Amino acid sequence: MARIGILGATGYTGVELGLILERHPEAEIAFVSSEASAGQLLPAIFPRLAGCRKLAELPLRTAADCASTSVDVVFSCLPHGASAEACLPFLEGGAEVIDLSADFRLHDPADYPRWYGKPHPRPESLDQAVYCIPELHRDRLRGRKLVANPGCYPTSVLLPLVPLLKAGLVGEGPVIADSKSGVSGAGRKAVLSNSFCEANESFSAYKVGSHQHQGEMRQEVAEVRAGVPLVFTPHLVPMERGILTTLYVPMAAGADGDRVREVLSETFALEPFVRVLPKAAGLPATAHVSHSNRCHMAVVDLPEQGLSAVVSVIDNLLKGASGQAVQNWNALRGFPEILGLPA
Amino acid sequence: MARIGILGATGYTGVELGLILERHPEAEIAFVSSEASAGQLLPAIFPRLAGCRKLAELPLRTAADCASTSVDVVFSCLPHGASAEACLPFLEGGAEVIDLSADFRLHDPADYPRWYGKPHPRPESLDQAVYCIPELHRDRLRGRKLVANPGCYPTSVLLPLVPLLKAGLVGEGPVIADSKSGVSGAGRKAVLSNSFCEANESFSAYKVGSHQHQGEMRQEVAEVRAGVPLVFTPHLVPMERGILTTLYVPMAAGADGDRVREVLSETFALEPFVRVLPKAAGLPATAHVSHSNRCHMAVVDLPEQGLSAVVSVIDNLLKGASGQAVQNWNALRGFPEILGLPA
Amino acid sequence: MARIGILGATGYTGVELGLILERHPEAEIAFVSSEASAGQLLPAIFPRLAGCRKLAELPLRTAADCASTSVDVVFSCLPHGASAEACLPFLEGGAEVIDLSADFRLHDPADYPRWYGKPHPRPESLDQAVYCIPELHRDRLRGRKLVANPGCYPTSVLLPLVPLLKAGLVGEGPVIADSKSGVSGAGRKAVLSNSFCEANESFSAYKVGSHQHQGEMRQEVAEVRAGVPLVFTPHLVPMERGILTTLYVPMAAGADGDRVREVLSETFALEPFVRVLPKAAGLPATAHVSHSNRCHMAVVDLPEQGLSAVVSVIDNLLKGASGQAVQNWNALRGFPEILGLPA
Amino acid sequence: MARIGILGATGYTGVELGLILERHPEAEIAFVSSEASAGQLLPAIFPRLAGCRKLAELPLRTAADCASTSVDVVFSCLPHGASAEACLPFLEGGAEVIDLSADFRLHDPADYPRWYGKPHPRPESLDQAVYCIPELHRDRLRGRKLVANPGCYPTSVLLPLVPLLKAGLVGEGPVIADSKSGVSGAGRKAVLSNSFCEANESFSAYKVGSHQHQGEMRQEVAEVRAGVPLVFTPHLVPMERGILTTLYVPMAAGADGDRVREVLSETFALEPFVRVLPKAAGLPATAHVSHSNRCHMAVVDLPEQGLSAVVSVIDNLLKGASGQAVQNWNALRGFPEILGLPA
Repeated sequence: MARIGILGATGYTGVELGLILERHPEAEIAFVSSEASAGQLLPAIFPRLAGCRKLAELPLRTAADCASTSVDVVFSCLPHGASAEACLPFLEGGAEVIDLSADFRLHDPADYPRWYGKPHPRPESLDQAVYCIPELHRDRLRGRKLVANPGCYPTSVLLPLVPLLKAGLVGEGPVIADSKSGVSGAGRKAVLSNSFCEANESFSAYKVGSHQHQGEMRQEVAEVRAGVPLVFTPHLVPMERGILTTLYVPMAAGADGDRVREVLSETFALEPFVRVLPKAAGLPATAHVSHSNRCHMAVVDLPEQGLSAVVSVIDNLLKGASGQAVQNWNALRGFPEILGLPA
Repeated sequence: MARIGILGATGYTGVELGLILERHPEAEIAFVSSEASAGQLLPAIFPRLAGCRKLAELPLRTAADCASTSVDVVFSCLPHGASAEACLPFLEGGAEVIDLSADFRLHDPADYPRWYGKPHPRPESLDQAVYCIPELHRDRLRGRKLVANPGCYPTSVLLPLVPLLKAGLVGEGPVIADSKSGVSGAGRKAVLSNSFCEANESFSAYKVGSHQHQGEMRQEVAEVRAGVPLVFTPHLVPMERGILTTLYVPMAAGADGDRVREVLSETFALEPFVRVLPKAAGLPATAHVSHSNRCHMAVVDLPEQGLSAVVSVIDNLLKGASGQAVQNWNALRGFPEILGLPA
Repeated sequence: MARIGILGATGYTGVELGLILERHPEAEIAFVSSEASAGQLLPAIFPRLAGCRKLAELPLRTAADCASTSVDVVFSCLPHGASAEACLPFLEGGAEVIDLSADFRLHDPADYPRWYGKPHPRPESLDQAVYCIPELHRDRLRGRKLVANPGCYPTSVLLPLVPLLKAGLVGEGPVIADSKSGVSGAGRKAVLSNSFCEANESFSAYKVGSHQHQGEMRQEVAEVRAGVPLVFTPHLVPMERGILTTLYVPMAAGADGDRVREVLSETFALEPFVRVLPKAAGLPATAHVSHSNRCHMAVVDLPEQGLSAVVSVIDNLLKGASGQAVQNWNALRGFPEILGLPA
Repeated sequence: MARIGILGATGYTGVELGLILERHPEAEIAFVSSEASAGQLLPAIFPRLAGCRKLAELPLRTAADCASTSVDVVFSCLPHGASAEACLPFLEGGAEVIDLSADFRLHDPADYPRWYGKPHPRPESLDQAVYCIPELHRDRLRGRKLVANPGCYPTSVLLPLVPLLKAGLVGEGPVIADSKSGVSGAGRKAVLSNSFCEANESFSAYKVGSHQHQGEMRQEVAEVRAGVPLVFTPHLVPMERGILTTLYVPMAAGADGDRVREVLSETFALEPFVRVLPKAAGLPATAHVSHSNRCHMAVVDLPEQGLSAVVSVIDNLLKGASGQAVQNWNALRGFPEILGLPA
């Protein structure tokens, strides 16, 4: 059994991670950290954790205090900026690190300030990190100990887009990712704009053309093909969890929706967490993957406009964060990727 | 005071229409029809109408029964197919008709079966009808008595798109309208997929590339420029009312987001119901226009991808239906267009 | 036209008040105050006010700055504690004051610290104030200039309870008011427990037996009959607005549900804002009175248990706050009480 | 491994039951029935079941067709009336039956028509059935094969009330259970009143004093003490799942809130699914037990009014239905009651 530490255990992704790891047959949670709630037990903050065996009993400690506890792997749900500083000592001490923040996602140190507005705290460490959506990049994990877990939006965009780029189905012209997310994507914070009365019964666009997740999307798209003009527009949905991305892909000569569906179906045929809907099976809804680590996607052919649309859905807290983090760790360790994960 | 009849008064648009017309200084409601609830009073079905003077007292009658009541204008909220048959006798009797259904929106009788799956019941009448979003087409009303009130989605798409086409700012490549609507757009019906437990906490795409509102969008776009490849993708938001459309427009040579904003600002400068947000004023949310007849729009420049995005929001039941219907009637009569409408 | 000032215009009740007073035929808004947003225009904070004539143009000013503006009446939506201090100078200057805070609701200065945890800032002023639900207490307004507008919960409880006490229908044993409120009752604040992800899809009890609104309920009940054991239990509903109170009343000898309904029907027969449902008309829902100044109530006879239940609903922001405030001012001035109010 | 049949697998409780039993280490699902969807696979109706191993592959069959499949236990989620008829052949064939409908809950055949409006289809079978909330009645299971699984509301009411009655803490006067339920309690049906636009942003009372669940509550209360005047008032909350009951209990001489908390704490001290909150631990919310088989309860002392209030919360689909059904089966078989159940 691996001894596990969770940094930042009192945010939405931290709690999801704890719930998964508590039941993971190869994991034993050794510490849970929280700066604001150190000294308390998790059920005091989240009464719904009252029924947990392990999570209910481990006192929250500061990250600094946890540093003295020996663990085999650290999952960090700390905010970007803080996460790198807290993770690296564990890495240097020999532990595996799965970082859910953005701190290790961008290879080029110059990219970080562009999207996050400040210099990277430890740019020299970026070389050690590997950005990994397991279905697309699991080969990258070999020999690594520091995994940059992808952002929620990028997961919903790259899962359908990368295979189409690789297969040469994407033509000229902009690729547009119109994404819609539930409110938990903004984290567990007291912010007026996310209060019930402000967020409920409203749908809005935000950070169109400027969202920080574009950095990693562009990086990963450029890995496959340079110069793809990608548009990303996030929107806020009055629901707790879920992301739906409507991806508009210009078709290369000879490509069409049927070929797109075929390539996606083949790419993901053996993947337990990705389901490409058959032609007549309707379109996905976020509720279809809620509380699971799955991604569902469907293809719509738009031949008159020279496009295919791919609609993908994930649970932003699971496949978009904590579920994928555990999937990445499973892959890193050579466990079956589904181990401990809700199907 | 004009004597008014409302056909189909017990759907969501019918009730909104009744609430507006009850307070309209030039209108007096003479009848309200409902096939299913004939004989009842409206507050028995909608207890929230208990405080209404007129609406609370007029018994619902069948459309056939209402035909004998002399009115100056009929607003029809009947479903397509039924609406034309019910409206035309009033038109032939000399009344003005504002039809909120799709029955008179498509000029070409061949278009109707394509989008609505059956032949038009009275194709010879289509010539008399005029499709009108007042801010774009009010000149068309002159001398007419039959107004086809536009659909909710097309209103949110055409308001920003038509002025850009007219100004020559739209370049080659597909124009994409990614629209998101609250559940009331589906009407007041007992349908499992719209039940609370199915629709809540879920976001979904539906009828991508096949929604019937594409017919009228294409028609009106083609009026300005032929051959524009328009994509329309509707989505369902877990909220009651509101539509947000994210419109992706390829820029013609020399055009950019600033020019787009300028053209929209100039086009709508004197319009009481349309507000084009200045550059730094953020992005619209559906709640900003809820319970109003307004449309807010904002422009985002995407120069790297050769696009501009325009985000527009309306209340689907008001600017997208009943509010615009009254605005159309005001325009037809030469009243100030804001008369009786919630700003 | 009376010149009106609104203190605390950027909370939920302040905005509702502004929207009502802007259309009130006897009112002209002279100032709107906000400590946090002084210098800004209201639509910059609430884009949905973009269509307002007057509210959209008046710059927000600090309360101190507003003190120099001469007005005929001040409505205060400031928090308790701050409100008394801000209102009294206007009162002393001759203006009428309608205070929506709790500062003038309790006659006995000893009551205030019990429920609000600190001494009253100006206890000597309490004598001038009058607590008034117009349907119950409008006679109290004569000759007064300082009106304590009742709390939202007390309005929903006292409207049905006071007439039953007066009619001698209430027997021995506890009277229980089990109340349920939408989230806007907590005000417009960034508080984690009211964030979308925490408040949505959950129903909870809070402050059972200790809520501060009990002070004014007990005071007003004791005005009619001493020693009534009243229980009040508030709950939080995942919706924006509305209060439903289920009131359990032990029946005096000879009393029953029919008599309760009769007394309530007679009491409110001529009231434009209160509707007592007939026996077979079902039970009220908060949506029936949403966005209105109405109260609906229904009576259920529980003869086997010696009780009657009365279910009452109001919109907490209107009949429970800003609507009733304007109704109170209308009554104070001798205007029809419905003037300017949404029916 | 027991071979399991699920009758009525396409309602909300049926699906929850399937999800639990699929992971239950002692269960193997042998059939799933649905009259309306026979021939289809479950994921065609519930795409979120796509990741299930077993549930995703078993074709739905009619109840009649399933009768030929040999099973060891049948769980029935059929509606009352239909359920008894479908269950009894399996019982007679030797299988255990856990019936989630109301058909076997009332011992006295005369009670059934009073609450369900028609004669019981098989009154002679009632003797064989046992009504069982495991924490209260597990001794009743000995030697039985037909378990009437309690209703959702009664579970939330009886869990706190029965121990207080047994301990003699309940005094004279009415006991009031004011309950609030999410919309899934009404089942998976296309009904206008449960559509999103009707149920959202509204809170309502319904069936006050007449709800059919009173029959079983009264029966079980009378088992402990005759003549207790019990009031039950259900309300509808705009959320999917969860019940909160606020129970007002008149105190017997010498009893008070501390004693009530003590008795409940002792009663449930060893129960894995029931948690009695300590005095200072706040009040429960339905989200605290959502997606779990737990019940949380808290006690508030109301000494001035001679009452104690107990607030209890459950997930109506789990502890209020399918979770408790599996708990009952575990108890019947002598398995640990937590086996296969989400803590």
